[in-house]
Amino acid sequence: MKINPTPIRGMKDYLPLETEKRDAVTAIIVDTYKGSGFSRIETPALENLNFLTGGDGGENEKLIYKIMKRGKKLKLDNILNENDIAEAGLRFDLTVPLSRFYANNFSTLSLPFKSIQIGPVWRAERPQKGRYRQFVQCDIDIIGEKTILAEIDILLAGTTALLNLGFENFKVIVNDRRILQKFAEISGFVESEFGDVFISADKIDKIGFEGMEKELIAKNYSKDKVEKFSSIISSFTGKDLLKTIQELNIDIDADIVNDLQKLMDILKSQSEGRFEVCYEPSLIRGMGYYTGPVFEITYKDYSGSIGGGGRYNNMLGKKFNREISACGFSIGFERILDIMNEENRNIKKAKQKIAFLFDMKNDEIKNVYEVSQKLQQDNPESIVSVLKKEKKLGKQLKNLKEVGFSNYFIFGENELKAMK
Amino acid sequence: MKINPTPIRGMKDYLPLETEKRDAVTAIIVDTYKGSGFSRIETPALENLNFLTGGDGGENEKLIYKIMKRGKKLKLDNILNENDIAEAGLRFDLTVPLSRFYANNFSTLSLPFKSIQIGPVWRAERPQKGRYRQFVQCDIDIIGEKTILAEIDILLAGTTALLNLGFENFKVIVNDRRILQKFAEISGFVESEFGDVFISADKIDKIGFEGMEKELIAKNYSKDKVEKFSSIISSFTGKDLLKTIQELNIDIDADIVNDLQKLMDILKSQSEGRFEVCYEPSLIRGMGYYTGPVFEITYKDYSGSIGGGGRYNNMLGKKFNREISACGFSIGFERILDIMNEENRNIKKAKQKIAFLFDMKNDEIKNVYEVSQKLQQDNPESIVSVLKKEKKLGKQLKNLKEVGFSNYFIFGENELKAMK
Repeated sequence: MKINPTPIRGMKDYLPLETEKRDAVTAIIVDTYKGSGFSRIETPALENLNFLTGGDGGENEKLIYKIMKRGKKLKLDNILNENDIAEAGLRFDLTVPLSRFYANNFSTLSLPFKSIQIGPVWRAERPQKGRYRQFVQCDIDIIGEKTILAEIDILLAGTTALLNLGFENFKVIVNDRRILQKFAEISGFVESEFGDVFISADKIDKIGFEGMEKELIAKNYSKDKVEKFSSIISSFTGKDLLKTIQELNIDIDADIVNDLQKLMDILKSQSEGRFEVCYEPSLIRGMGYYTGPVFEITYKDYSGSIGGGGRYNNMLGKKFNREISACGFSIGFERILDIMNEENRNIKKAKQKIAFLFDMKNDEIKNVYEVSQKLQQDNPESIVSVLKKEKKLGKQLKNLKEVGFSNYFIFGENELKAMK
Repeated sequence: MKINPTPIRGMKDYLPLETEKRDAVTAIIVDTYKGSGFSRIETPALENLNFLTGGDGGENEKLIYKIMKRGKKLKLDNILNENDIAEAGLRFDLTVPLSRFYANNFSTLSLPFKSIQIGPVWRAERPQKGRYRQFVQCDIDIIGEKTILAEIDILLAGTTALLNLGFENFKVIVNDRRILQKFAEISGFVESEFGDVFISADKIDKIGFEGMEKELIAKNYSKDKVEKFSSIISSFTGKDLLKTIQELNIDIDADIVNDLQKLMDILKSQSEGRFEVCYEPSLIRGMGYYTGPVFEITYKDYSGSIGGGGRYNNMLGKKFNREISACGFSIGFERILDIMNEENRNIKKAKQKIAFLFDMKNDEIKNVYEVSQKLQQDNPESIVSVLKKEKKLGKQLKNLKEVGFSNYFIFGENELKAMK
């Protein structure tokens, strides 16, 4: 029987060169985060289905790969719905599992707890270019820090990771949902309308202020309210946050605004001109669970973001009857790799590769390995590959050069030579 | 709704200290393998079910976590068997996916291809102490090298990895299935009986020679044959392989025996007394697909092995109508971590951790971060964590020491102090 060797639809094999790049990106990100005091944790790929579908995953909950019940638990007759035969699901993000992890382990964790999570997640999305059904997410979270320190810590670590990856001229956009709520409130909207307002405001970067106004008016909100709201937001374009709040005489908790300003000031000082930091009053970020500051990092003209996050104070503990503050940031792992490939960038020079060639027929293999190991010890920063010398040495050397060997060493000649 | 926060049955959360240890073990193994010219590759966690259940997984195929069909493909009425509703499965090992990877990518790979795979696999086994339903496997394989060079390369890399992890006094046991087949043949068994003979011989280390003989006689094999077979095997105990083959006047392809001897000689020379190498005529290793040399590494009195593998020349290509030679080694990743925990061993000293303390009320946060980043730059080998100074400083320092901080630095005092 001959079968189709391609991976399952929407998933991918990673060849050596690509895996090396992914590993190098992982190492830089994780080392940066560890240097800022974060620690890596891991949760299983599978979670109970009733937990995964608790509502915090939003649309992603519709994309869960479900695992079938097994043995006696699986009854094939009289199935009323999918969940009669499913019991677990593959995780679709790393934030929902983090809430279970925290509840399961809080007694052994000291607060604030600064976690790194990196690993695959699965979503049964319609496959399309550059989007896969298994992909890697990489999150940092700080649990149990109520003040703006968490946001500062997380964004300093996140931007440092990007700088260490060789990214510059990216743009850190920040907002606080409570400020936007206040704008909606003083424009005349009531709390039950904030959802509609936010959905439209979130699209300003795509449809413009006019588009937003049209959308809201189409939803039967009065022109007065809508125009006032639009005018407040647009007053901030290119302006100083604190000064504009004062000029417009907006009555808002000073701490919220001062904290956001503090966050921006520290980031700007850290940037030393290598990246931009700006306030964007209409930034929402999709997930419903954010409660305060939110942020997003964009890069040049690339669509989408290369990172984002925010504060989500009530979500982590709610399923487990605990109140706990939290703030998280997700670096766009796959997006970053895509961009690096598009920009044809390499991260760091791979180790020098030395081909150690010997004659299978004439050389004593035992001596071959002794000498090759000595060569490896003398060149700890290199990779020494022991290979049979082929009849057509010139052709072999050419091929080896093509797959990345920079030097060769022929047993007996005992001399390290550079590939021509 | 309050829900149970424990992980899914048989699976595990990994806390920071344990994850750090796992990461360190991973790094040492992978760096060692890369140093020997192997490259990491990755395949998806999910594979098509008809591919996973092709027979090469043996008993493990019964332990597959199955993924349900989705959308229109999932018909809940009139289900005759499980596979009507399942379409994919989680991989239960890394060798079966490697065969698909090779078939899918052979045109871009140059031979011999030396791969590293490390990642989780899933098996729905009955949970028991020390055995989990998601666990990490770590394999190296050489594809397309017919000679004993592959075995040498793989076992040099594998034993070096163990030495680099701090293991010594382990025992590398080698055999070649073709030699054992010859022993069975000259004892009077025919090929169709080899399976029975191997199953019993494989248990000699547990039930002894007598036990093996009893088992085979109970299966109605003649006492003559069984005793001859038993006597041949036992003649090798503690003896030299080549000499004993000659003494017993066994007519076997000299290359097979010479190759195995060569493998042992090179390993012994490499060991410099740090580990043992021995020939064990009854070593089989479970998987049916091995075709030549097999090997296993044991450690002290610990049950089970800390690594093993062998040559499997026909398996990799058979589903894809290609003939390809291959040889693989799997290091017992989880077993090694268990032993390191039992022996209370650490691999490498974690980075020094410095607590940078400041006063949230009085200190200017921007300056705090500038100074803390300078401290980080001055101590690149340390981790600097910025933390709020608590009222009870003595108690805070005591807690910080407990979670691994070795030094602290109070903003304003500007002096790095060691924890008492």
